[in-house]
This record gives sequence, C-alpha cells and structure tokens, in this order.
Amino acid sequence: METFSPTARTQVRRLAQRGVYDRQEVYAILDEGYLCHVGFALDGQPYVIPTGYARLGDEIFIHGSPASRMLRAMGDGVDVCVTVTLVDGFVFSRSAFHHSMNYRSVVMLGRARVLADPAEKMIAMRRFTNHILPGRFEEVRPPSDAELRGTMVLALPLEEVSAKVRKGPPIEEAGDVPLPVWAGVVPLHTTPGVPVPMDDLVPGAAEIDRARFTRFNAK
Amino acid sequence: METFSPTARTQVRRLAQRGVYDRQEVYAILDEGYLCHVGFALDGQPYVIPTGYARLGDEIFIHGSPASRMLRAMGDGVDVCVTVTLVDGFVFSRSAFHHSMNYRSVVMLGRARVLADPAEKMIAMRRFTNHILPGRFEEVRPPSDAELRGTMVLALPLEEVSAKVRKGPPIEEAGDVPLPVWAGVVPLHTTPGVPVPMDDLVPGAAEIDRARFTRFNAK
Repeated sequence: METFSPTARTQVRRLAQRGVYDRQEVYAILDEGYLCHVGFALDGQPYVIPTGYARLGDEIFIHGSPASRMLRAMGDGVDVCVTVTLVDGFVFSRSAFHHSMNYRSVVMLGRARVLADPAEKMIAMRRFTNHILPGRFEEVRPPSDAELRGTMVLALPLEEVSAKVRKGPPIEEAGDVPLPVWAGVVPLHTTPGVPVPMDDLVPGAAEIDRARFTRFNAK
Repeated sequence: METFSPTARTQVRRLAQRGVYDRQEVYAILDEGYLCHVGFALDGQPYVIPTGYARLGDEIFIHGSPASRMLRAMGDGVDVCVTVTLVDGFVFSRSAFHHSMNYRSVVMLGRARVLADPAEKMIAMRRFTNHILPGRFEEVRPPSDAELRGTMVLALPLEEVSAKVRKGPPIEEAGDVPLPVWAGVVPLHTTPGVPVPMDDLVPGAAEIDRARFTRFNAK
C-alpha cells in the first residue's frame, strides 16, 4: 500500500491538514533522522528515552544492551510509541501568538519483536552502521558472535503510523502586517563539523570524507 | 539544592557514569534545546509527541491549543515524562559494535499544572518567544486576551529529573587499534540558515540578525 491507514489512534486531529500518511514521505523522514524517542509505560508511569534507530523496509530497528530497562520492556511486548522529529526552522510572526516551528515528525505505535536469529541481527547491525554513514559497515570490523549475543535488537513494524508536517511562512493576522518587525522563517541546518580523530590511528586510516554523510548534503 | 536527588525512577542504571543530576548542567541542556518529546499514556497506550518548551526557574512550560489531546491529558493530571535530547556527534569506532552517538539528554517525570492566571500565562508566552530568540517578545505584538484564553499553558516542575551525557571518543578494543580505518568523533552542528522573509514586510522591518540566536553562537 502506498499510504498508511489512519486508525483512531493515529488520525491527526489537531491541524488535520498537517497529517501525512504517504508511505514514501514517512520513509524519507525516518531515513533523514537518526534519533528517535521511545515511549513505554511501566506501572502507569510513561518513560521517553532517546536512542538511535534505522529503518529496513517496513520495520525500524532499535538496539542496545539486554540490561536496558527500555529494551527489556519492549522485548516483553509492551505497547510502545516511537517518535522521530526533524526541526526544519523557526517561524517568526509579527505577533507572539503565531510564532511556531517548521518540522516533520513520524509517530509509530505498536509492539516490537526481539530479533533472535544471529543472521538477522547482523543485518540490523549493518543497517544501524550504514544508516549513519553509508558504506561504513563494510570498512570496519563486523560484530563478533559475543558482541551479537550482547546486543539486543528489536524490530517495530511500520503499521500504525502517522506523520505530521508544518512548513512555510507564519500565519499572520491582517492587522499585524503593518507592524515594522521582521517576519518569516529562519531555517535550521544540521551539518557535520570537523572530524576529531583518535590519536592512535594507524597509517592508511584516511580522514573521513564529510560528503559521505548524504543525509546532510541536500541542505 | 544544587543537585536533583535520584529516585528509583530517575536513577541512571545502565552506564551509570553517564548520569548527571547537577542542577546547572540540567538547566544548560534545557536552555540550549528547544524541542521536547512529551510522553503520556491513554488506556495503556503510550504516546510521544514533539513540541516546543521553555524553562523558567524550576519549571518547564508547554503550550498549545486546548483541543490538543496531549495538553488535555496533561491538564487532567496524568503522569507524564518529558525528554529533551541534544545530539552532539557521531562516534566512529573501528568496530561496528562500538559505534555510538555523543548526546546530552534530560528526562523529567511528574504531573503538570494548568496555568489559569492570565498574568502568569503572559509570563510563559514571553518565555516561549524569548527562548527561541532573546528579546523577540519585546519586538512583536503581545498576546491579546482572546489569544491568551485560546492558549493552554502547562507547567511541569523540575523535581524528578535526571540527565545523561555521553561525550568523547569511541571505546575501542585493543585488538582493533591496528585496523587501517578512521575512528573518532564527527561533531554535529545546528545553525540558523539564511532567513526567508515574508513578502509583505513593511519598511523598517530590519532583517533578523542571526547572531541573536545565542544558543548556536558557541558552537
């Protein structure tokens, strides 16, 4: 299917014109981001924990230590919500009230499954590494059996999913337009800075080419 | 108190050396960030919703439409978790396993109160606006009575709070050091881009000076 079907839980109600269910647009947001926030509740108390992720097909992978409270809860099959947000700019209006942000966000609801098969875990590890820097996994030492065993990997299916997008200029009240104050959008750009090498690199360990961070190139 | 007291719910257990409870360090993370993720559960299903925020003293403010499901839930006094995360860099190891991110995050647990007093709501609106751009509130039209009534503002006390910080180079296995591959940290910088003005600005609406975005200046 080309679009996600909104459910009672993922239908964007507030500012419904910002709701996006197109699958390719959801993929694009998930592939540009690299940080998600995982929500789960224990004894009624919600927790929101930041972590990395990577998408493969219609799943996102989350990973970490099997000792992590978040991963253990997810592995136990609790209901989770995973959210990815990209802030594209600050929106400046002539009125305090209409200040806003431009953003793209994806909200995913569901239950995760634990990856048990070492071959599937290896595929996930490759995705995590190459999601940050394409081709990186092929350059480095792959995970050992012990490292794979020591990594818990969870997959959340992209089934109950919605995205929300705000873009463009501020809303302005007609009465505010004559005010002599700047209004518009200040875009925000995230870029890789000067790499900081370890001091024990061996000869042949060429500096990393920042152009390889393709997610940042279009901006 | 200079530090937050960890509770059973906020004690950082995994990688405990990354736990931070110092009040000034928590403030610094919250004042540099501008996006939070609010977690709450309805009928057992957790939701994680991105939104802006601003800190004033020992509270953070969240605001929006009274029709928002998130704000209504918070206003009803449900348990919430609000998390702010800043990603400082990608950490590249010679092994796939030790790849990581440098980050600073704050997790806040508790219940919010609804601001009912228009004067207090006005103070919060000033904080929201000036949190993004210092001095901006004094330049623009302040909220009208109707706008204040149409804005729901919630305050979450900074009581049950913890922060987590990862910084510095990757962990490396001794056996990986001879590998001829780059390892180190690629910092990430977020900066304001070229402002995009509205096309109906009046004379005297001077371009916004990007140096005023003080949160980005030190980077």
